[in-house]
Amino acid sequence: MAMAFHPLAASRVRLAPLLPGAAAAPSPASVAAHHHHHRRRFSAIVATAAASATTEFDFKSYMGSRAEAVNRALDAAIPAGEDPVSLHEAMRYALLAGGKRVRPALCLAACGVAGGREAWALAPAAAVEMVHTMSLVHDDLPCMDDDDLRRGKPTCHVVYGEPIAVLAGDALLSLAFHHMASVGSYPPDVDPDKHPARVVRAIGELARCIGSEGLVAGQVVDLEMTGTSEIVPLERLEYIHLHKTAALLEASVVIGAIIGGATDEQIERLRKYARSIGLLFQVVDDILDVTKSSEELGKTAGKDLASDKTTYPKLLGLDKSREFAEKLLSDAKEQLAGFDKEKAAPLLHLAYYIAHRQN
Amino acid sequence: MAMAFHPLAASRVRLAPLLPGAAAAPSPASVAAHHHHHRRRFSAIVATAAASATTEFDFKSYMGSRAEAVNRALDAAIPAGEDPVSLHEAMRYALLAGGKRVRPALCLAACGVAGGREAWALAPAAAVEMVHTMSLVHDDLPCMDDDDLRRGKPTCHVVYGEPIAVLAGDALLSLAFHHMASVGSYPPDVDPDKHPARVVRAIGELARCIGSEGLVAGQVVDLEMTGTSEIVPLERLEYIHLHKTAALLEASVVIGAIIGGATDEQIERLRKYARSIGLLFQVVDDILDVTKSSEELGKTAGKDLASDKTTYPKLLGLDKSREFAEKLLSDAKEQLAGFDKEKAAPLLHLAYYIAHRQN
Repeated sequence: MAMAFHPLAASRVRLAPLLPGAAAAPSPASVAAHHHHHRRRFSAIVATAAASATTEFDFKSYMGSRAEAVNRALDAAIPAGEDPVSLHEAMRYALLAGGKRVRPALCLAACGVAGGREAWALAPAAAVEMVHTMSLVHDDLPCMDDDDLRRGKPTCHVVYGEPIAVLAGDALLSLAFHHMASVGSYPPDVDPDKHPARVVRAIGELARCIGSEGLVAGQVVDLEMTGTSEIVPLERLEYIHLHKTAALLEASVVIGAIIGGATDEQIERLRKYARSIGLLFQVVDDILDVTKSSEELGKTAGKDLASDKTTYPKLLGLDKSREFAEKLLSDAKEQLAGFDKEKAAPLLHLAYYIAHRQN
Repeated sequence: MAMAFHPLAASRVRLAPLLPGAAAAPSPASVAAHHHHHRRRFSAIVATAAASATTEFDFKSYMGSRAEAVNRALDAAIPAGEDPVSLHEAMRYALLAGGKRVRPALCLAACGVAGGREAWALAPAAAVEMVHTMSLVHDDLPCMDDDDLRRGKPTCHVVYGEPIAVLAGDALLSLAFHHMASVGSYPPDVDPDKHPARVVRAIGELARCIGSEGLVAGQVVDLEMTGTSEIVPLERLEYIHLHKTAALLEASVVIGAIIGGATDEQIERLRKYARSIGLLFQVVDDILDVTKSSEELGKTAGKDLASDKTTYPKLLGLDKSREFAEKLLSDAKEQLAGFDKEKAAPLLHLAYYIAHRQN
């Protein structure tokens, strides 16, 4: 494997203590190979992260408790059994299908680092997950990516039909804004009656990241590129990822920071942090695509590069892609330097998680 | 024709001066029959409106100037030729296809009656039209109502394809909220920095009327009813109309009133006004469906009642439907009684227009 030659490979020994529970549980049969692979693949990224490896922070328990709180908020936001039943069922099916709730966690963590109580940002955290789910439901439609499975379950339109899937997406999108604008979604000390300016600003951020400057723009260009046999140029690949992935991660962080009472200068630093981890998220996705295929199919990485989908490894090669990921993680960390170390720990470890995740 | 026997038919002489320019221009060949038909058909409704027939108010010029202002705002809200070009083109195609801009006019007029300058509500007025357009684009999709034509032009998915139509709808929906939340969309004396609480409340109203309590709920139940050969019960028909049509008219009025600085008591009166004209809008639509068919096909109204679509005339008969429309117009007028007569003139004449329109 090419990565064994990476100059920073020696630093891999610090990986295990850094990421308690961040990797999904692999099947027993694949544990050994997986672990070996895991330690090597992210060695470059880990080099820059190693300095913080001593921080005491239980990432697994942080993510677990936040996901639980967000899931409760999402569950309460959509009535079960109320008219129209099929619509509410479809919304709940898509929204409560599990998932790691990375975007809500970013939102809550950013609220905390800005000096707020994380609970202030529970409504926006639920809202960003609603928006994320809407984009998945619409992107999975037969006329789009035509996906039948999502997280191992049949997709929304497979279960409820296309019309309900389109409409459930629309309803989730509007519910996100309703949730953001409702006094009842917030603790009393930060509700829209007390801090309307924060709420308006946060709503504007959320709205911007969805449409023709965000998720939708990314999906449009992705669809345009899918039809052709041409290689997507790097600039276009970055456009897709910045819009389809990074925009909502950026909004999640910025919205949390706004609700938490961040200054403009803090918001801009957190925005830069979020852009870096947003692109990092996608670069890692691309690396996983290639290296996972190598494992599963017993093919060399070089063969995967010949597949149809344009990825960072395909355009840059695997080593340069890892270096790029390393650079993005380092950029993200840099933006957190000025914040209180303890308060910034969740955002720091979310960045590590995004860099090191296995799926 | 049955309506000639209506007890209030004699009042029809007052119709012409009441509605300058409200009816769409008919083809020369149909003018005589149309006019005759027109005068008779709405005689019942006009009876209650006749008392205000002397009001000086140039409805045609009011609607023309407001539509122009709203069209300018909509045109400015979506860049032409910017990346992704196909998406922006599709959004502009759907949004700038003409139409009477009834919802924006209601929004502006409600801002005025609440004591605001109408220009304050230009951003929300544009936003409600974006939401309306989104609902048309998605409802027209092949998997929904499968409509190829809208206002005499090919529908969005026919021109740009299904994926872009779905995504253009999503982008219009998020743009509506972005527009509502942006300082630059408002005159400086009422922008979100000055009146954030008004803007948050208005955004909450807009969001609520779209999803599972509004447009989407109405479309879901409408789709459910379309498949069956059963007659839709009156309660279900009203559910569809209150959600699919009235909810956005209500939001248009209430949002305008909120931005205009209305008191809670004023907002509730205007909300009742809007609910009445919202349902009126649909009852009149149903009456037009039946009576237009009668004319065009030379069939009696009774024969049209046998058609598949459940309408108010089908459930109540034509006379009772007209009485219901009359009652709704009268209810709407009643809610305007406490407001300054001159400031309330646009909303009053919008109610007349909705009652008397020909398409």
